[in-house]
Amino acid sequence: MGMTMTQKILAAHAGLDHVVAGQLIEANLDVVLANDITAPVAINEFEKCGADAVFDNTRIALVLDHFTPNKDIKAAEQCLQTRNFANKYDIKNFFDVGQMGIEHALLPEKGIVGPGDCVIGADSHTCTYGALGAFSTGVGSTDMAAGMITGKAWFKVPSAIKVVLEGKPGRWVSGKDVILHLIGEIGVDGALYKSLEFTGKGVEYLSMDDRLCIANMAIEAGAKNGIFPVDGVTLEYCEGRFQRQPVIFSADADAEYDSTVTIDLSTLRPTVAFPHLPENTKTIDEVAQMEPIAIQQSVIGSCTNGRIEDLRAAAKILAGRKVAKGVRCIVIPGTQDIYLQAIKEGIAEVFIKAGAVFSTPTCGPCLGGHMGVLAKGERAISTTNRNFVGRMGHVESEVYLASPAVAAASAVAGYIADPDKI
Amino acid sequence: MGMTMTQKILAAHAGLDHVVAGQLIEANLDVVLANDITAPVAINEFEKCGADAVFDNTRIALVLDHFTPNKDIKAAEQCLQTRNFANKYDIKNFFDVGQMGIEHALLPEKGIVGPGDCVIGADSHTCTYGALGAFSTGVGSTDMAAGMITGKAWFKVPSAIKVVLEGKPGRWVSGKDVILHLIGEIGVDGALYKSLEFTGKGVEYLSMDDRLCIANMAIEAGAKNGIFPVDGVTLEYCEGRFQRQPVIFSADADAEYDSTVTIDLSTLRPTVAFPHLPENTKTIDEVAQMEPIAIQQSVIGSCTNGRIEDLRAAAKILAGRKVAKGVRCIVIPGTQDIYLQAIKEGIAEVFIKAGAVFSTPTCGPCLGGHMGVLAKGERAISTTNRNFVGRMGHVESEVYLASPAVAAASAVAGYIADPDKI
Repeated sequence: MGMTMTQKILAAHAGLDHVVAGQLIEANLDVVLANDITAPVAINEFEKCGADAVFDNTRIALVLDHFTPNKDIKAAEQCLQTRNFANKYDIKNFFDVGQMGIEHALLPEKGIVGPGDCVIGADSHTCTYGALGAFSTGVGSTDMAAGMITGKAWFKVPSAIKVVLEGKPGRWVSGKDVILHLIGEIGVDGALYKSLEFTGKGVEYLSMDDRLCIANMAIEAGAKNGIFPVDGVTLEYCEGRFQRQPVIFSADADAEYDSTVTIDLSTLRPTVAFPHLPENTKTIDEVAQMEPIAIQQSVIGSCTNGRIEDLRAAAKILAGRKVAKGVRCIVIPGTQDIYLQAIKEGIAEVFIKAGAVFSTPTCGPCLGGHMGVLAKGERAISTTNRNFVGRMGHVESEVYLASPAVAAASAVAGYIADPDKI
Repeated sequence: MGMTMTQKILAAHAGLDHVVAGQLIEANLDVVLANDITAPVAINEFEKCGADAVFDNTRIALVLDHFTPNKDIKAAEQCLQTRNFANKYDIKNFFDVGQMGIEHALLPEKGIVGPGDCVIGADSHTCTYGALGAFSTGVGSTDMAAGMITGKAWFKVPSAIKVVLEGKPGRWVSGKDVILHLIGEIGVDGALYKSLEFTGKGVEYLSMDDRLCIANMAIEAGAKNGIFPVDGVTLEYCEGRFQRQPVIFSADADAEYDSTVTIDLSTLRPTVAFPHLPENTKTIDEVAQMEPIAIQQSVIGSCTNGRIEDLRAAAKILAGRKVAKGVRCIVIPGTQDIYLQAIKEGIAEVFIKAGAVFSTPTCGPCLGGHMGVLAKGERAISTTNRNFVGRMGHVESEVYLASPAVAAASAVAGYIADPDKI
């Protein structure tokens, strides 16, 4: 029986010819990642083990992105501990405040991860790099510590769901709408410990930014990882960027899948996930039939949607318009390079003229930690990845998930709005 | 006996022909100000009084600048309370997140305060507007509440120190160096409850941004206020900006001063205030004689030094250079308009290319509240206004105060450095 793309990557990293779903394997890691929240926990575990060396100082990435620039003394101490560790072990991919970006925007951009890699990160959205044809998944800080010491991790080989994408997406339909639609279809536990293997003719219509967004939210369907085939779009993205040679894996023709989901991209519409689960999706047309849903905050950014195409989509809506009275629109580029690009393209100017915040990269508002926390009773539309109870602040606040275009249109309207109808 | 400039403004606002130092008066207020930290306290007092109206909804300014974009739920609740109050009483000068800036950068820029005004604000650096020839001073939130209800405040008329500025400042000597030098001369209680009346031929060499910085830190010498004569620079700044007619007051020739301090600006050098008081000043030449003082953070911004000239000075240093390894350089424009101007001039790009954070306006790091808090043992150079114990974070952190040029040079060097010697 053949293997899925994920299984082939895992087999290769375990030094095995063949693996099957459910098998326990030990795989060699290409990159091990943590951030300012998870690294300190991993470092404590590292030290408890009595370790005095990392497996490879070029294969560990430490990114200070969550509560930075330091929001309080605790955040400052966490960054300091991570920084001291990075200095002690001469970690090459240590990204401090100002050099940084949001980890899952930064690692692909800097070419630290790429096709064929096996990556773990002490952050649930580490699955993002599946967009590049890598196996990547989130782990706890203890696994992260072990990974830093040994360069290896244990996995149970996941079974798979095949997601066949067909057709070409219409206007204002982005990667975010694809993944929200899928999660709406299969539910937040629809892919529990499975890999989501994206395939089909429709993939070619998805830019790398779309794919990164889709793979990023695989975890929101419970998946171990999400993965895209390596094609011309991937290789072009990696060209002059990926620090190593891409290794291309593809699924065997007779690979086994638990199930297949087919999505005709041409039928999708901008999609919104209602509180308090990403699976509570409605199309913008369904939303338009409802009483207007007033918002107090619109967040455009995060590891899910803080890339240049996301900012461009938002800017297209916000250009020459104003954020509605009573709404805070907070736009956060994913990395310093994206920030710079946004300045060059005149997009940063558009945001500020529209009355939006344009901030230095940080994960802050997504997890209710910094730079856009909600008060009791407030409602936000957000391009982030989770809308659980209290995710962005007070337990009595609400988060609606959507694409940058919908978030921008809603910021202008003051309620959740169709980009084509403002 | 004649009156000082401050005394003349107070007399006019009290409807009196003459006042003397020490006299208690009730003055009409032109503007009453609060921010997201102080407004909630004032609003609570307002409501405890049973008030159901403000004296004038065009003369109250509420600016959400301290812990915004909301750093946590408490910050979100404080902003919400202030926003609800602003909506209820239709406060015209309410500045929400994204429309805003740092209050003392914003109010002059938007022409809300101007020459001849009598202004109180529930923030100690309200004295900033003395740069425009206004009497303005910080008050507690209870006085702020009373001011919102009655449009009046009680003052004890201050006596004065005359500060005669002579000569032309040299390269890299800015308003910040003038005020640090003065505080170094007279001490942090050198002007206790007095007005600092700036005058002399040297004033003409000080731009409005220099003067705003100098008046801003009058409080750091203990002064009730600092005030500049209204000249061509002032009127040009107000042109097309100040929402009312400037009223020009000037000191009587026979005004009485407790003392006179003369400063020859041409002899000043970039000046640094060492921990933990703004009066602990040394020139950059004295610093150069010492062991290098390594820094971990450089903050360029705040109500003291977040204006366009400040950013220009920092950019001149940072252009084509990189922030030193181990240093976070956090640059924060004072307002959205300054942010926009920085983008237009290519300055924003310079900061990001240098590896500095360029953030949306906030007071955050200055008071150790947000966006740049220090860990135990860390040292910062900062263009902010106070270096008291724990001001920017942990009680065992240290803050050195300096101009944007020195802060930028230090960010590049990694230790406190002379802008001419990096």
